[in-house]
Amino acid sequence: MTILTPPTRVDIVEVAPRDGFQSIREPLPTADKIRCIEALIEAGITRLEIGSFVSPRAIPQMADIGDIVAHFTRRPAMRFSALVPNLKGAQLALDSGLRELVYVVSVSESHNQGNVRQSVDASLDGLAAIVELLHERDLQDAVCLRLDLGTSFDCPYEGTIDWHQVDAVLGKARDAQRNVSMEVALCDTTGRATPYQVAEHFTRLREQHGDESLKWAFHGHDTYGMGVANALFAIHHGATAIDAATAGLGGCPFAPGATGNTATEDLLYALHGGKVHTGVSLPRLLEAADLIAALPGGQTASHLRHVPRDRVG
Amino acid sequence: MTILTPPTRVDIVEVAPRDGFQSIREPLPTADKIRCIEALIEAGITRLEIGSFVSPRAIPQMADIGDIVAHFTRRPAMRFSALVPNLKGAQLALDSGLRELVYVVSVSESHNQGNVRQSVDASLDGLAAIVELLHERDLQDAVCLRLDLGTSFDCPYEGTIDWHQVDAVLGKARDAQRNVSMEVALCDTTGRATPYQVAEHFTRLREQHGDESLKWAFHGHDTYGMGVANALFAIHHGATAIDAATAGLGGCPFAPGATGNTATEDLLYALHGGKVHTGVSLPRLLEAADLIAALPGGQTASHLRHVPRDRVG
Repeated sequence: MTILTPPTRVDIVEVAPRDGFQSIREPLPTADKIRCIEALIEAGITRLEIGSFVSPRAIPQMADIGDIVAHFTRRPAMRFSALVPNLKGAQLALDSGLRELVYVVSVSESHNQGNVRQSVDASLDGLAAIVELLHERDLQDAVCLRLDLGTSFDCPYEGTIDWHQVDAVLGKARDAQRNVSMEVALCDTTGRATPYQVAEHFTRLREQHGDESLKWAFHGHDTYGMGVANALFAIHHGATAIDAATAGLGGCPFAPGATGNTATEDLLYALHGGKVHTGVSLPRLLEAADLIAALPGGQTASHLRHVPRDRVG
Repeated sequence: MTILTPPTRVDIVEVAPRDGFQSIREPLPTADKIRCIEALIEAGITRLEIGSFVSPRAIPQMADIGDIVAHFTRRPAMRFSALVPNLKGAQLALDSGLRELVYVVSVSESHNQGNVRQSVDASLDGLAAIVELLHERDLQDAVCLRLDLGTSFDCPYEGTIDWHQVDAVLGKARDAQRNVSMEVALCDTTGRATPYQVAEHFTRLREQHGDESLKWAFHGHDTYGMGVANALFAIHHGATAIDAATAGLGGCPFAPGATGNTATEDLLYALHGGKVHTGVSLPRLLEAADLIAALPGGQTASHLRHVPRDRVG
């Protein structure tokens, strides 16, 4: 019998300002977004996906990304990242001063088509173009590239995804990597991943790719009630960072029935129960969760927000 | 890095007919209860806590327990159990033909007083009296005694419970055991247990007590979003049986804010994802969950009931 001992620390990557806000149709006032992000930072969040450098025609909610990034520059303790769907987005993100870029490729062809309207190979070419840009600007050592591998466990159109399929896409991505440091997130886009599947994928992929140029992360949902269990199984099989959305704000328009990312507060409760260092104050984060849950048009999913607060420490 | 491999099989102990029905104030028609239990059996449930032999004045919902047990006798593949709060209840349960008795002792004094209006030591004397009864009737080898250790992780009045406190109560219970086979359930009465705490308690208590005369079980809630994670951590630290309530029906009047037990369907989804044998059909169980959720006056909490059914296999 193995005893599962908690890790010393886990990076919480807060994604409500990107995944979460993006799920709200009606554009939110920039000041409200800034207020929520400030509350998250005050709670102790140090890694935060702040938004997307996408065309405002495609996602009007992200039209003010430049203003938001400008507001939060010069916070040396913070690691802000932004999603960049293509080379243009990467240029804008780098111009804004950001040094962490999130690039999404779905493992399944049909989901990649639905999500970004191009083939997986075309998306991988886009990744190569971004790496080329980093070298052109001599930023290859200054930037962390987060590769979000969407549908790493399940696809709403194709069903269960085998780890070999993830391996094939990751292999091509690494051919494009060219010494840029990369954090690979296995993303449970639909929330249908199960803990033993998470264990298997992380184990097998780390066997294939677990050298020092890669870090590993997990991005999950609690739609099927697996949120916390999947995150912990990821951690025990090599993930050092977990994406989570405060208040569980979110949903995915291309993953029918999916709720938001696993609530940051639920994950913190699990981790702090094992004295895992996250740097985040749960009571303060619950205050941020209340702010976020009060945003008009948002869908939330959280357990901790609905229990008595007096004993949540 | 340890790889968590799924166990071959896990016993699901269905508790909606006891914990769940008991949470409904207005007595349900006996026929409705029988219909729900039949649906659970048809789904493949083989261990089922069918009700309580308590005074109908204390819990009117359980007044028809005799009729329900009589309806379900002579099903050799089934392991039915019933909660017995005292010697009188044990006599009635044995008279009805049941051979699995569930006896509850809370680890915390204040919760035991709130739950059964007597001290922990008085409850342990009650356990000794039941064991004595089994020997008087020469049933010591024919009966399985389930000991539910309430508040094994947290008490609504006293806060966090240390494993030494559980150890002290379990030690006294074992002094009363006298060769009767016993399954010990560590019960997360409030839902506040966290996965690493579950791991620690099972590990330490099995170090102290893990001889062949004991089996181990876990009884949890999803109130804090830990339901599935706690159950899996219990399984990986020695639990071979997990209590769960279909549809998540339930709640505890003496544990403010607690929702029902972790939904059987959510737990099955996690286990079947690892090809763990449970003997239960998830699609059939979801039909039972719909029946149970339609009972008037019940509170439910389930993830799987609210996702599209077409891909739940």
